[in-house]
Amino acid sequence: MKMSSRRSVPLLIALALLASSATAQVQTLDGKASDPITMGWMVGSPPPPERTVRLEDMSFLTFPQLRWSFSHWRELYPTVEISKGEGPVKALPHAERKALDAVTFMPLGGTKPMTWEQSVLANYTDGIIVMHKGKIVYERYLGALKPQGLHIAQSVTKSFVGTLAATLVAEGKLDPNMLVSHYLPELKTSAFGDATVRQVMDMTTGLNYTEIYTDPNSDAFAFVRAAGSLPRPAGYTGPTNSYDYLKTVKKAGEHGQAFGYKSVNAEVLGWLVSRVSGKPLAEVMSERFWGPMGMERDANIQIDTNGSALAAGGLNLSLRDLARFCEMMRSGGRFNDRQIIPASVVADIANGASKADFAKAGYQTLPGWSYHDQWWVSHNRLGAYMARGVYGQACYVAPKAEMTIVRFASFPLAANANLDPTSLPAYEAVADYLMAHPN
Amino acid sequence: MKMSSRRSVPLLIALALLASSATAQVQTLDGKASDPITMGWMVGSPPPPERTVRLEDMSFLTFPQLRWSFSHWRELYPTVEISKGEGPVKALPHAERKALDAVTFMPLGGTKPMTWEQSVLANYTDGIIVMHKGKIVYERYLGALKPQGLHIAQSVTKSFVGTLAATLVAEGKLDPNMLVSHYLPELKTSAFGDATVRQVMDMTTGLNYTEIYTDPNSDAFAFVRAAGSLPRPAGYTGPTNSYDYLKTVKKAGEHGQAFGYKSVNAEVLGWLVSRVSGKPLAEVMSERFWGPMGMERDANIQIDTNGSALAAGGLNLSLRDLARFCEMMRSGGRFNDRQIIPASVVADIANGASKADFAKAGYQTLPGWSYHDQWWVSHNRLGAYMARGVYGQACYVAPKAEMTIVRFASFPLAANANLDPTSLPAYEAVADYLMAHPN
Repeated sequence: MKMSSRRSVPLLIALALLASSATAQVQTLDGKASDPITMGWMVGSPPPPERTVRLEDMSFLTFPQLRWSFSHWRELYPTVEISKGEGPVKALPHAERKALDAVTFMPLGGTKPMTWEQSVLANYTDGIIVMHKGKIVYERYLGALKPQGLHIAQSVTKSFVGTLAATLVAEGKLDPNMLVSHYLPELKTSAFGDATVRQVMDMTTGLNYTEIYTDPNSDAFAFVRAAGSLPRPAGYTGPTNSYDYLKTVKKAGEHGQAFGYKSVNAEVLGWLVSRVSGKPLAEVMSERFWGPMGMERDANIQIDTNGSALAAGGLNLSLRDLARFCEMMRSGGRFNDRQIIPASVVADIANGASKADFAKAGYQTLPGWSYHDQWWVSHNRLGAYMARGVYGQACYVAPKAEMTIVRFASFPLAANANLDPTSLPAYEAVADYLMAHPN
Repeated sequence: MKMSSRRSVPLLIALALLASSATAQVQTLDGKASDPITMGWMVGSPPPPERTVRLEDMSFLTFPQLRWSFSHWRELYPTVEISKGEGPVKALPHAERKALDAVTFMPLGGTKPMTWEQSVLANYTDGIIVMHKGKIVYERYLGALKPQGLHIAQSVTKSFVGTLAATLVAEGKLDPNMLVSHYLPELKTSAFGDATVRQVMDMTTGLNYTEIYTDPNSDAFAFVRAAGSLPRPAGYTGPTNSYDYLKTVKKAGEHGQAFGYKSVNAEVLGWLVSRVSGKPLAEVMSERFWGPMGMERDANIQIDTNGSALAAGGLNLSLRDLARFCEMMRSGGRFNDRQIIPASVVADIANGASKADFAKAGYQTLPGWSYHDQWWVSHNRLGAYMARGVYGQACYVAPKAEMTIVRFASFPLAANANLDPTSLPAYEAVADYLMAHPN
């Protein structure tokens, strides 16, 4: 389920709703009322039918059931382990700053201030960590997530893959100016055949492919059916794995003209990383990140019917391990007393790409941003850049504030435009507080 | 895939083949030639079609592909974690006895002796550990299994569940003389409605249910289709989860007359354990075994479409953790400096049940054995009892020899009758050697 869908709710309507009071108006149940533990999903042997969450009937992706699903992804799909190996865990020091709860901000398009604590609930947060100068200053778990538990990262997965690709570029193993078909001749006749690796990395390919979450005829659904992640209709004759689907994607317009958020780019990039590395993505993730970084929990990634990792959104990891990854980025690629990725890779990601290309995509909550190496770059005063996944998965790296925020959530709607008004200004307010109160 | 199938290959034919030379005659590829690493299953991004193992086309359960599948079960099915928790690992001391390789035995029905080392290969072993007096004296990994890896336990799972049930009986939480329907009223109108808990534990229920692995019309396949573990045909209108299937099983004959190995008994028992414990089986396994025993690796168990654990054969665990479990049994329920289960439970399992009831089932490789609490009891001079799973999964506890042997395998054929001739006498020979050479 790696479909972002900025178009799934008209943005202006969403903003208006958020501005008038809160997300409670979008759905009946607010963050507290929809708490999956209180609601009792999947409790009992067997759970009663009205409290059973299933893949087959799509209830797993229906609100409020998805509040359970996102913390139980491996119970829905085949997954492959991303091993942390046998090394010691790199502990994250704690220095709790309870005062953060009272930090106040004005939601985007709003008229009434909100506290940080309120925003945590308003965003249907499952878990959130704020790190400042390398220490955890705030850590909360809500919903069905526990500190040791894993949560689906959705499209935050893409930023891991983009970082791997950028690292391979820095190491001279992947040439961003080469055509994708140089590395993946299987894609020669597809839209990706004459796209460069760089265009795929920055999602500036011109594709005849729609990613509209609310439209069952959208190509994004055709992809997941091909991958075997959703049931196929009787008499289905389409591709039966993710890579075969990628071969069928056709071109629309020219490459390199504009940013267009289409998850198949990330799938191609995951394929490229595997091909160039000569091993499955899960193994690359383990060797490059989970092992050397001293991660706390083995992670896993959802796979398709052929065992290929779903690079656009299949990663499941613990919140603290996401914090470790994002702290590594904030620290110029250094973590656990070693250089995990070259500092130049981090600097290049933080620099972002063309704002003009990005503006064409019309993200109203992200003015002046760009998209580079599968990261969302704010170009704001904090130098912040983000990994973002549908339903509120987020990693916000703010180098100038020496701050990182990671969040897992299970918002009722997919599009992050619904969460941005109560998230982006909240992150900035917390950064301002921490800079003003360095301790 | 928890179907045992003693009838899948006529026993006398299998024995004759084994007697004449070895399992190489049953299949083209022997243990070495079928090595899944050498064969290169699932290598490449993507693996070439002729080296891809898939669930959809059933290739995962075809030899030699199954040699890969059994060490990669979570990549095929949804699974739920059985957590080892945060406690320290209980180390298993090593005292390698290389001499075991040369221990010689006569295969059942054979005329030519075989060495232990030869038997390891002949049985398509993926991993094997011999423990003597609490120390690992022999440990080998072949095939696709690594020391840290997990392997499908097949019906060895049942013995974990049977041990849990027997423990609940000892604690007075489960009455073996009660009808199953006392605890599970949902099963009132099924064959299990008027069966006692004891009859389910010892598989002496009279069921109109066939478990013939080579017959696609066998009820065992209907069960796995209901559970969602195999694709359902178009227009399928049967039950859509494992518990609903159990409700449909009808009675044949009378309960309590004879042993009949039918996996649905274990599924009912798993349901009973969950119901009486008030929590999912995976959680019970974690709290009762994985946590307190100091297990080395988180395990997992395959689940059905409703999230219910497949108690008859879904457990995936590391070989060393299986060794820990079986050593706990050998040590009167004591392990990791604590009493894991009551000593009385172990003593009762070792005592077995009615040999006469067992004999009616006609297992030619297991004369004089019985079946009790989901364990196979040899009543031999070593006091040995076994957990057994199709394709060669085994745990052989020999209290009189202070020895435990655990084995994961991926034999070409399901029925353990094919492996017994080169396994059971080999276990006894190793026990004799260790007793004769106590150091």
